[in-house]
Amino acid sequence: METIILSGAYSPIPTPFYENGYIAYDEFSANIDKWCKTSLSGLLVLGSNGEFTYLSRDEKLMTLKTARQVIPKDKLFIAGTGCDSTKITLEFTEQAANIGADCVIIITPMYYPSKMDDNAMIKHYLYLAEHSPLPVILYNMPANTGVDLSAEVVIELSNHPNIIGIKDSSGNIVKTGNIISGMSKDFSFLAGSAGFFYPSLVMGASGGIMALGNIAPEQCYNIYNYTKNGEHEGARNLQLKILAANAAVTTRYGVPGLKVALDWIGYYGGPPRSPLSKISEEQQGLLRSMLAKGGIISAEI
Amino acid sequence: METIILSGAYSPIPTPFYENGYIAYDEFSANIDKWCKTSLSGLLVLGSNGEFTYLSRDEKLMTLKTARQVIPKDKLFIAGTGCDSTKITLEFTEQAANIGADCVIIITPMYYPSKMDDNAMIKHYLYLAEHSPLPVILYNMPANTGVDLSAEVVIELSNHPNIIGIKDSSGNIVKTGNIISGMSKDFSFLAGSAGFFYPSLVMGASGGIMALGNIAPEQCYNIYNYTKNGEHEGARNLQLKILAANAAVTTRYGVPGLKVALDWIGYYGGPPRSPLSKISEEQQGLLRSMLAKGGIISAEI
Amino acid sequence: METIILSGAYSPIPTPFYENGYIAYDEFSANIDKWCKTSLSGLLVLGSNGEFTYLSRDEKLMTLKTARQVIPKDKLFIAGTGCDSTKITLEFTEQAANIGADCVIIITPMYYPSKMDDNAMIKHYLYLAEHSPLPVILYNMPANTGVDLSAEVVIELSNHPNIIGIKDSSGNIVKTGNIISGMSKDFSFLAGSAGFFYPSLVMGASGGIMALGNIAPEQCYNIYNYTKNGEHEGARNLQLKILAANAAVTTRYGVPGLKVALDWIGYYGGPPRSPLSKISEEQQGLLRSMLAKGGIISAEI
Amino acid sequence: METIILSGAYSPIPTPFYENGYIAYDEFSANIDKWCKTSLSGLLVLGSNGEFTYLSRDEKLMTLKTARQVIPKDKLFIAGTGCDSTKITLEFTEQAANIGADCVIIITPMYYPSKMDDNAMIKHYLYLAEHSPLPVILYNMPANTGVDLSAEVVIELSNHPNIIGIKDSSGNIVKTGNIISGMSKDFSFLAGSAGFFYPSLVMGASGGIMALGNIAPEQCYNIYNYTKNGEHEGARNLQLKILAANAAVTTRYGVPGLKVALDWIGYYGGPPRSPLSKISEEQQGLLRSMLAKGGIISAEI
Repeated sequence: METIILSGAYSPIPTPFYENGYIAYDEFSANIDKWCKTSLSGLLVLGSNGEFTYLSRDEKLMTLKTARQVIPKDKLFIAGTGCDSTKITLEFTEQAANIGADCVIIITPMYYPSKMDDNAMIKHYLYLAEHSPLPVILYNMPANTGVDLSAEVVIELSNHPNIIGIKDSSGNIVKTGNIISGMSKDFSFLAGSAGFFYPSLVMGASGGIMALGNIAPEQCYNIYNYTKNGEHEGARNLQLKILAANAAVTTRYGVPGLKVALDWIGYYGGPPRSPLSKISEEQQGLLRSMLAKGGIISAEI
Repeated sequence: METIILSGAYSPIPTPFYENGYIAYDEFSANIDKWCKTSLSGLLVLGSNGEFTYLSRDEKLMTLKTARQVIPKDKLFIAGTGCDSTKITLEFTEQAANIGADCVIIITPMYYPSKMDDNAMIKHYLYLAEHSPLPVILYNMPANTGVDLSAEVVIELSNHPNIIGIKDSSGNIVKTGNIISGMSKDFSFLAGSAGFFYPSLVMGASGGIMALGNIAPEQCYNIYNYTKNGEHEGARNLQLKILAANAAVTTRYGVPGLKVALDWIGYYGGPPRSPLSKISEEQQGLLRSMLAKGGIISAEI
Repeated sequence: METIILSGAYSPIPTPFYENGYIAYDEFSANIDKWCKTSLSGLLVLGSNGEFTYLSRDEKLMTLKTARQVIPKDKLFIAGTGCDSTKITLEFTEQAANIGADCVIIITPMYYPSKMDDNAMIKHYLYLAEHSPLPVILYNMPANTGVDLSAEVVIELSNHPNIIGIKDSSGNIVKTGNIISGMSKDFSFLAGSAGFFYPSLVMGASGGIMALGNIAPEQCYNIYNYTKNGEHEGARNLQLKILAANAAVTTRYGVPGLKVALDWIGYYGGPPRSPLSKISEEQQGLLRSMLAKGGIISAEI
Repeated sequence: METIILSGAYSPIPTPFYENGYIAYDEFSANIDKWCKTSLSGLLVLGSNGEFTYLSRDEKLMTLKTARQVIPKDKLFIAGTGCDSTKITLEFTEQAANIGADCVIIITPMYYPSKMDDNAMIKHYLYLAEHSPLPVILYNMPANTGVDLSAEVVIELSNHPNIIGIKDSSGNIVKTGNIISGMSKDFSFLAGSAGFFYPSLVMGASGGIMALGNIAPEQCYNIYNYTKNGEHEGARNLQLKILAANAAVTTRYGVPGLKVALDWIGYYGGPPRSPLSKISEEQQGLLRSMLAKGGIISAEI
């Protein structure tokens, strides 16, 4: 198995639906095709932006298969396979391997959050790392799960050869530093949102998996590239410029906002699944102005 | 369809596993048989204590089928069918109806908690109420989900004829009062834990669905019965007496603690599924003393 | 020193200000005079509703002295003397004793909340209990302080002869039960808000210190009296009836709402001190309807 | 009035006490003398590390006077004057001006946190800015206060000519970016802890006020200086190196830890005031190893 290098900008792609609620596989393929012509290093299928908790197992498998057919070999194909139980996560991870994903990303279990302590997380991920046919990326997303992997857990897990990195969406820059200062050299820290991409990179992150990458892949890549090249002024200016746009498609309007934005820039966005809802006309107006401020779309319609 | 009266003490039963992780269906049936000889009014299958998030869809269906074969008609069979998406929740609810459950309980969606606002909850539950072939009970469990149904939402939903009650595990006694003072007359409020069963009853709850019911069904029933009969001294004393035991099998040791306790009292408990773990020897000692204090087991082994 | 019995309904009275921000001592005296003609068992001066953190030390002393001149001997005079440091709390407690308060209530320290653990709380309160010339009531108000006394701490402190009770504003009815089931027999549990007065009483509380007591002293007393007499139907109905009014003058509009309500019912309310603000006209309309619903004022102006 | 430039590393100095609890003014002077020979740009007296909430008004005044006598004119003297009420904060600010502080830092009010909304904060700070004889620095410390100034509030306040900066201890790097991208050009953003000093600087902060500055002033200054000079490798390495030491004297052991560390490096540390406690022998051992790891003390005693 060749070593996977996690670096640059990755995008956690949405799962598109028709108005009737069914998955729009053709539009999904067309979208992927476009993303793969950008500077993105790869795609995460079935992450939070993929509404993975809203899909049946059959839908998840078909989504991965569809993605596999379109993603070229020079772009990393990361499959989100986390489920609440260790057993079912492994089963799904094995299916993702059979489909041909390059690696998997496994979100923390989220039910019984008070029981998901350091020991439980170590046990869960080590078992999966031992048995997974694919390299594993940890996925920490406390705002959605109520569970926050500690720096100590991440550092311990970083020593397992089959655990190759973490996508941390917490935005806790001190913990980022703690992890980076203690993690194994073969382990990669990836920022989980474009809102803190540049400060994460200066602290030692090697890349990011960011919702904003779906609609602003080149800007995300440029923050990475500027930083890599020591052009800090450029990196900071771009980081500050895209903050409002990033918030708009993450904390503020979430997946429903991201999907509207995709429709505006020539991708298929479509509706989210219920209980998520399309954003209102008024929200769309605000979204548009935030994206315009970030240079992602023009201010006029 | 005959009207369902929700009153008395209900138990959210665990799903038993063998040491190899597979579901122990025979032991499940034997357990149900025992619970149905107690004063419990009915059983909730696939609730939080049933580790519902740790089961595959096929396992969930088989669990419901197994329960249906054992639960007699005079005990209410409540099936937990909540999933994160409205669509998949409805599909599973229809399957539960085909299997013959009496009604369903639907936990709040939990992913994207910041988007699960009042409007989203209203939309989700009204759609399900409209389309569900079975009466719907709301299930509010903020400690596990990070989502807390507001009193306003519960009151509004209480007016739908196919939404018959709520199991509220928040323990917020002020909100309990707010809901009860505003809810439809055909709607029932059920305490979600034995830790606040008596105060909920005096405020106007008609019953409870309580983990402690699994190991202390008669004590739970007696709190209900004392209160109903105006024997407040007896109700209070019993309520205070079981507090530590209740905490032991809920907030403190959770499902793993409950399962050990079941083993001690002649039911099949067995291990939880990973990432939950069996409790330690030391924890078992503490658990035993808490249960003994509550009069549920004897202090000696 | 004669033993203090804490039972019935107490009111944590506001400190009135003129529009220029100075304390309106004459109006304060007149208000106290009215409250002391109600069924209230006593008054808490310099509690949260007294904006105690907004007063200088000199103002606090003058406020206590003014109260002492008006409160008759058959009503308990409780002085709020909690400060963040143990040393300054003791100094102020001694001053309150010199002024002639009957007992003191001491809120938890609130700065450095992560350091205010069980050991710190035990040390703080035991030192004060040892040295205070007056009996001490614990004051737990986590919504304002970020510090929540554990049941274990309260139970341990309840054994000190100079610690006679707790006002618990947390509304955590399970913790209420835990405290009551473990506390010393000489210790009294007082509900900290009228929103959970009746359920607290059935669990074993002996009274309450409640903002609502300022504007609805008889209703608060009646909840107590009904419960004491076993008239649970009456207690419950009254409890449910005043819930909205109670929320209006506590969690929703706070001290500013309470002061407006006082103006309406013939007491002097006046403005709060900045950064608190008077509530808006629109909020006043909502407040009025909530108070009317609770039978505290008439719906018409 | 000459313009104050906020840049570089500042230290929020502790208030030293004798074992009997009285302030050790001589040792305070001696400490200040030492700090003023370092590369620190100035000192904050009566901040969180100064246990300001544990001092009487008279003690606060004497502390400021003592500091004024020792701090030379080329080091900025920042006085912490925030109290919960606007009125008392202004009175104390005027006293600090009379004593000769260069500027004041005003922490957010913290009682009634649910009422400390954007409007309340704007009103509070604008009134103070209008009336304060000294320039005002905002102080956001949500971990201690439960109140978190929003980016919108900070940006709006940044336009007032008498509000010159913010010390933000939240460590929220996204909000840091939001503030910096919207704040007035005459306004300075200061990191509130050394744990996120370097990432704050790359985002556009001009300095920091950091507990670690008390025991590692040169390291703090060097992070600033490296970054200013574009030596990012050096800045990052130093940032990562001091993380554990910084946590040790802030989130982990707080002021009590900081004071022990001062004793070790030749300053007077002494005990904190109760309810804070000295750290245990075991904690001192851990503290020592964290400081040694950061190159602040040698590992051997």
